[in-house]
Amino acid sequence: MWRLSARGRAYSDSAIRALAKRLSVHPNLVSFAGGMPAPETFPREEFARAFDEVLRCDGTAALQYGPTDGFAPLREWIAARISTPNARISAGQVLITNGSQQGLDLLGKVLLDAGDTVAVETPTYLGALQALSQYSPRYLQLPCDDNGIDPAALADALAGAHGACKFLYTIPTFQNPTGRTLSLQRRQSLVEICQRMDLPIVEDDPYGALDHNGVEHATLLSMNASGVAYLGSFSKVLSPGIRLGYVIAPPALSRRLEQAKQASDLHSSALMQRVVFEIVKDGFLDQHLQASRALYRRHAEALQASLSAYLSDHAQWKSPGGGMFLWLRLKNGLDAETLLETALSAGVAFVPGAPFFASSADAATLRLCFSTVGPADIERGIKALAQVVRDAQHDSRTQQ
Amino acid sequence: MWRLSARGRAYSDSAIRALAKRLSVHPNLVSFAGGMPAPETFPREEFARAFDEVLRCDGTAALQYGPTDGFAPLREWIAARISTPNARISAGQVLITNGSQQGLDLLGKVLLDAGDTVAVETPTYLGALQALSQYSPRYLQLPCDDNGIDPAALADALAGAHGACKFLYTIPTFQNPTGRTLSLQRRQSLVEICQRMDLPIVEDDPYGALDHNGVEHATLLSMNASGVAYLGSFSKVLSPGIRLGYVIAPPALSRRLEQAKQASDLHSSALMQRVVFEIVKDGFLDQHLQASRALYRRHAEALQASLSAYLSDHAQWKSPGGGMFLWLRLKNGLDAETLLETALSAGVAFVPGAPFFASSADAATLRLCFSTVGPADIERGIKALAQVVRDAQHDSRTQQ
Repeated sequence: MWRLSARGRAYSDSAIRALAKRLSVHPNLVSFAGGMPAPETFPREEFARAFDEVLRCDGTAALQYGPTDGFAPLREWIAARISTPNARISAGQVLITNGSQQGLDLLGKVLLDAGDTVAVETPTYLGALQALSQYSPRYLQLPCDDNGIDPAALADALAGAHGACKFLYTIPTFQNPTGRTLSLQRRQSLVEICQRMDLPIVEDDPYGALDHNGVEHATLLSMNASGVAYLGSFSKVLSPGIRLGYVIAPPALSRRLEQAKQASDLHSSALMQRVVFEIVKDGFLDQHLQASRALYRRHAEALQASLSAYLSDHAQWKSPGGGMFLWLRLKNGLDAETLLETALSAGVAFVPGAPFFASSADAATLRLCFSTVGPADIERGIKALAQVVRDAQHDSRTQQ
Repeated sequence: MWRLSARGRAYSDSAIRALAKRLSVHPNLVSFAGGMPAPETFPREEFARAFDEVLRCDGTAALQYGPTDGFAPLREWIAARISTPNARISAGQVLITNGSQQGLDLLGKVLLDAGDTVAVETPTYLGALQALSQYSPRYLQLPCDDNGIDPAALADALAGAHGACKFLYTIPTFQNPTGRTLSLQRRQSLVEICQRMDLPIVEDDPYGALDHNGVEHATLLSMNASGVAYLGSFSKVLSPGIRLGYVIAPPALSRRLEQAKQASDLHSSALMQRVVFEIVKDGFLDQHLQASRALYRRHAEALQASLSAYLSDHAQWKSPGGGMFLWLRLKNGLDAETLLETALSAGVAFVPGAPFFASSADAATLRLCFSTVGPADIERGIKALAQVVRDAQHDSRTQQ
C-alpha cells in the first residue's frame, strides 16, 4: 500500500548507528567509537540560568513561531564572530539550522540534481555522505595525504571531472574522521584553485574552535566569502542535544537556503536560539572553550603516549593538534572491520574506517575518538587493542 | 559560480510570508492574518520548572546527542495517548520531528518521486503544499464542500487519477484554512474508500485537541492504522517555539522516515523532548487544554456575532466548532486579494484564500484567524472589514 520513492528505498542505517547496536551488548567497553563531545564540558548551570532568564523576560516571543532565518541577535553575534577584516559577514547571510547536519541537507536540496558531482576528501565525514546522498550525486574522491587535500593534485583531479562538479565539501580543521588539519599554505592554494576553476566550496567547521593549544585557524570563508558556504555548529562547543548550528552563504544562496528551510521545518526553536544567545552574548564561550581544549589536550596526549608505547610497531598515525579524533592505519594488511569483533570481546571499541570513504575504501584504517575517554581508560583500551592487533598479525603470519 | 538545482530554482517565498512583510508597515492593525496560537496559552512557568528539573536531574543526557527516533519515554507517552482500543500504536511507530512541518518534508522524501500525484483537499494547508512541492508532485484537488471531502465524489475523482496517487493528504479536524471538520460518517466513508482503492492517507492533526467544547473527534488513524500516517504537534497545545511534533506510521514506513530524519538533521533536541515529557507526563495537558479551548471559544463566538451583525449580507461562512480559523466567501464576485490593500489601509488584515488552492483557486475566499485577536478587536476589525466590503461592492456596482 505504501509505495516508497526511489530516494525512500535507498535509505539505509548508517554504519555508525549499526555499530552502536553491536556495542550495546558489550558492557564495560573502553569505547573510542563515539563521536560525542565530553559531557563534562556541557555548561549545565549556564543553560539553567539562561532558560530561566529567557522565559522570564522574553517568554512570549521565545515560545511563539519565529522567523525562518533565525533570532536576529544570535545571527548578528555569529556574523560578528565569524567576520574577519577581509571578509565581512552580515547577519543576513546567517541562517540558523538544527545542527550543521541540517545545513548539509539544505545545501543538497538547493544545489544538487541527481547525477551532479560533489568533490570530497579521502576519507570524509560519513554524515555528510548521508545528507548529500539523498540528492543522488556522484562523488569525486580527492587526492589527500596525512595533511589533507593535496593542492598539487587537486587541479588535475577537478579537471578530470570536466567541470561537472557542483561544489567541493571539506572539513579543513581537525577533520572527522582523520583529525588532520590543512595548513595555511594549502588553504590558500585550495581556495585559489577553486576560485580559478569556478568551483564553490562547502566548508564544514565543527571543530575549528577546539585547537588543543588555542591556535586559531584561518577559515576558507575568510579567504573568499563569495565562493564559500560555511557550516558552523554549537554542538561541540556548547551542547549537541540542543541541535543548533548555522550556515553562512553568499546572499543569493542564503535566501534559497532560507526558503528550503521554511518548506522543511519552518524555523529552528525560537526558545533555544534565545537561550544560546543569552549564554554566549557576553563572552562566555571563549572562557568556556579554554577548559574544553585543555580536557581534550590531556586526552590526546594520553592517547599519543599509549599508542607510542603499545602500537608503534603495528600501526601508523599522526597526532592531531585539536578536535576529538585520531586516525590509525594498521600495518601488515590487517582489516579493521575484521578486527572489530575480536576487539569488542577484548573490551575495546573503535569505528572501522571504510564507511568514511565515498569509494575505494582503505580497509586498514580506523577512527579513534578520544573526547569521552579519560587517560586511565585510554591506556587500558589501547593496551587491549594492541594485544588484539598483535594476535591478529601473529595469526595472519601463522596462516601464511 | 553557485549553480542551483532545479529544486533550488523553484523555491519561492510563501504568500503568507510575503503578506507578513506587507503587514509590518501598517501599525495598529487588527490582524486576522496570523495563524499562531494565543500567547496567553503558553505555559511559561511549567516550561521554566521543567527545564530546571531536566537540567538538574538528567542534564548530561539532555545536552548530549540522542537517538534519531526520539526520547523513548516521550514516544511511549504519545503512543499511549494516541492508541485506541481498535488501533494500538507502539512507541516504535512514533518518530519525533521538528514540528509537523518536518513530518511533511520527511513523508515527501520517502514517498514522492517527481510526477507522482498527491490528492489534497480544496483548499488545503499552504505549508503542506510548500513541503511536498519540494519533491515535484502533481496535485489532485478533491471535491470538497463546507463539511470537507465529499465521499460521494471521492471514488470518482480518485478513479480519474488512474491509480497514480501516492497518498491523500488531509486535515480532517478544524482544517487550516477553512476551520471545517469532517463528520464521523464521512471519516468512515473516506477511510473505507481509500482502503478499497489501496490509497494511503496522511492525516495532519494539529488542531484536533482544540474543539471549543472539548468534543473528541475520532482520528482516521484509529479507523485504519496500517493505512494512515498521522502527524501530531505540540505547537498548538503547548508552544510552537519549541518546534516539536511527531509522525506515527506503520512500522516499515516509520523505519524509513527515521533514516530520512537521521540524514536530514540527526535528531530533534534531546533537551526539548525531555522538557516536554516532564511537562505532560502527569496529566498537565488535559487540564491546560480546557483553558485554551475556552479562550478560543470566546473568540469564535465574538467573531460569529460580529460577522452576523456586519457581514451577513456580503459574505458566507460556517462557524467552526474548534481550532483557530474561519473561512469567508465574499458575495457578488469580490476578489479577496484586490480587497486586501484597502482593508490594510482601513486597519484590518486577513489572508486571501487563493494560495491555499493547489489549482483553480476561488478568489472570493479569505481566511480569518481568531486565536490571537480579543473580542473587542474582533468587533472593531470585522466592522472595518464590512465597511471595506460594502464600499467595494458599491464601487463595483457603480462601474457596471
